[in-house]
Amino acid sequence: MAWPSSAVLARRHARIREALDALSLDALIVTPAANIRYLSNHAGSAGILVITRDALHLLIDFRYQEAVRARQESTSACPHLRVWEVPASYEEALIACLAEIGVTTVGFEAAHVTVARHAWWQETIAARRLDIALRSTDRIIEQARMVKDASEIETLREAGAKLTDVMPAVLAAVRPGETEQRVAAAIEAAMRDAGYERMAFDTIVASGPHSAMPHYRAGPRTLTRGDLVVLDFGGVLDGYCCDLTRTVSIGPASPEARRVYDAVRDAHAAAVAAVKPGVAASAVDAAARTVLSDRGLGDAFGHGTGHGLGLDIHEEPRVGKPRADLPAVTLTPGMIFTIEPGAYLAGFGGVRIEDDVLVTETGHELLTTIPRQLLAL
Amino acid sequence: MAWPSSAVLARRHARIREALDALSLDALIVTPAANIRYLSNHAGSAGILVITRDALHLLIDFRYQEAVRARQESTSACPHLRVWEVPASYEEALIACLAEIGVTTVGFEAAHVTVARHAWWQETIAARRLDIALRSTDRIIEQARMVKDASEIETLREAGAKLTDVMPAVLAAVRPGETEQRVAAAIEAAMRDAGYERMAFDTIVASGPHSAMPHYRAGPRTLTRGDLVVLDFGGVLDGYCCDLTRTVSIGPASPEARRVYDAVRDAHAAAVAAVKPGVAASAVDAAARTVLSDRGLGDAFGHGTGHGLGLDIHEEPRVGKPRADLPAVTLTPGMIFTIEPGAYLAGFGGVRIEDDVLVTETGHELLTTIPRQLLAL
Repeated sequence: MAWPSSAVLARRHARIREALDALSLDALIVTPAANIRYLSNHAGSAGILVITRDALHLLIDFRYQEAVRARQESTSACPHLRVWEVPASYEEALIACLAEIGVTTVGFEAAHVTVARHAWWQETIAARRLDIALRSTDRIIEQARMVKDASEIETLREAGAKLTDVMPAVLAAVRPGETEQRVAAAIEAAMRDAGYERMAFDTIVASGPHSAMPHYRAGPRTLTRGDLVVLDFGGVLDGYCCDLTRTVSIGPASPEARRVYDAVRDAHAAAVAAVKPGVAASAVDAAARTVLSDRGLGDAFGHGTGHGLGLDIHEEPRVGKPRADLPAVTLTPGMIFTIEPGAYLAGFGGVRIEDDVLVTETGHELLTTIPRQLLAL
Repeated sequence: MAWPSSAVLARRHARIREALDALSLDALIVTPAANIRYLSNHAGSAGILVITRDALHLLIDFRYQEAVRARQESTSACPHLRVWEVPASYEEALIACLAEIGVTTVGFEAAHVTVARHAWWQETIAARRLDIALRSTDRIIEQARMVKDASEIETLREAGAKLTDVMPAVLAAVRPGETEQRVAAAIEAAMRDAGYERMAFDTIVASGPHSAMPHYRAGPRTLTRGDLVVLDFGGVLDGYCCDLTRTVSIGPASPEARRVYDAVRDAHAAAVAAVKPGVAASAVDAAARTVLSDRGLGDAFGHGTGHGLGLDIHEEPRVGKPRADLPAVTLTPGMIFTIEPGAYLAGFGGVRIEDDVLVTETGHELLTTIPRQLLAL
């Protein structure tokens, strides 16, 4: 398993500390697992991290002590890490930590802390007469994570490239008479054999009428001649997620299936071609949407064109229509996201084609390069 | 796939409405996927539900319309469901829904709504001069979910029983020379063949020194004679999670490994024996903890004895030491949780034994009945 080096972590810390400086914060409480991992290489499912001007305080319970101790002796040790063992309650341990290290103006991530948790922190700080003011912050770490550093790009490039090795086994499994569930099992076995540590999300094998449901998973239905089959799957490699969709036909595709397929493929190509630095993420969405609308399939494309990929399977940037309640994103070199237009016609079926793309200095690089023509299996 | 019937859903609604009455709420905003599924049978990964005195309003985007429409024509239709299609922003759609249906005192789940989301709701309600007061609520649906109804018990019993069919394939895969990852793949293939729709969590195969890390997953390490190997896995059947751990030895176990194993097995038996209605959940934890402390392994058992099982792999009740910041739970017939004491000795290895148990009218029923003696493989 390749972990970011201590030097990479130090650069990430410097970036977050610039943000803390700008907001006059002594510290930031970090609670989501992916944000904690990004800053510390701690990959456990529990933990709280407090980043200050000169240290990172990692609060973890008994279960993770051994793993963190081992990592701290490696080249991927987290710089200036102090580990606090949580005997029982993470919330109690956090307040005790803040009091002991003597920070007074402390940010928390408003998008990740629940109302109940925040209320408990506030009440406990007040009851103990601690001199700590909690301040809401907005996406400090997410903004850093949105632009991948060299080590992340390398990992995501490898995660995407490896999908090519998986495809022969995937396509061999798609046969008339096979069930969706058996095909999903074959995909997952092939992914594990290829070295992915786990699936990034529940595999979708949506056949025939099910292909018209964008978030159908896989069931006992048997693949049948004339079906369109949407195969949507992804793996996690060294913590990072890739995501791919291909749509195939069982036997020869009907003229209508081919028409829908070609429209989605052209929408996909138009969106990919639009990816370059300085462009709005929403313009990439518009490029796909225009093609589908021109073919009379605008209403059949009800979701966004893509989403960021990284330690989470869905992260920033969002590639969709502009929204009043969300900030616009301009594409920057190092951003990595999916391009996945689709068209879904209830009762008939659906098509989706998805690849992972990196924004480069001059344009884009596709991280997944599996052929996109309609295969009849 | 067996879904709760309309009648089962109606009884759950009645229970939640009693709670709303007691709190003088017109409605409750429900946001976690498991809570939405529990009340509506909508199993998508997105959605917001608003339950009022006489209806359930389900806000879903394009992707889920087809699946919900199909379910509403079945015997597991959600009673009094009104579906709202979300064109772009769930948050916008929620405020519009609340305004249109005319509720004024509206609860939200403080343990699930983030500070950022709550702030946006408040600001938007104020900006539009809507007569809506948001009130924080605490675990209304979680308390209902903690005591399983007959349909849930049936599903969880089946999920547990099916593990017996999986064990021969699991044990056949555990061999010297095999890697942890290959054993994990074999476990997951066997689970899918047995009919589980997916794994409930990332499979743990922790061998040799790794077995001392309670939350290690699986890596490239090769199983070696003298290893203890912790196998911890679970599946999802009809949406419900089961969870099992067995520890085996590669070749004959050393006297020290056997001593630790016997202590954990006795702690497990003591905890199971303590399960009956009217007992505090913390007393079950204490029963296991006392056995391990008496054998000098108190410090080696750093986690709680168990957790509730249901639509989530970790839910209430928590079976652990009493905590000042959490309410005490008294066991009630219909509760289902794990019993999973362990002992972890850094550098040596670890042992964990886990089963799923149902609280019955008179005591308990083990839902997982795989032999618990130490196997040397």
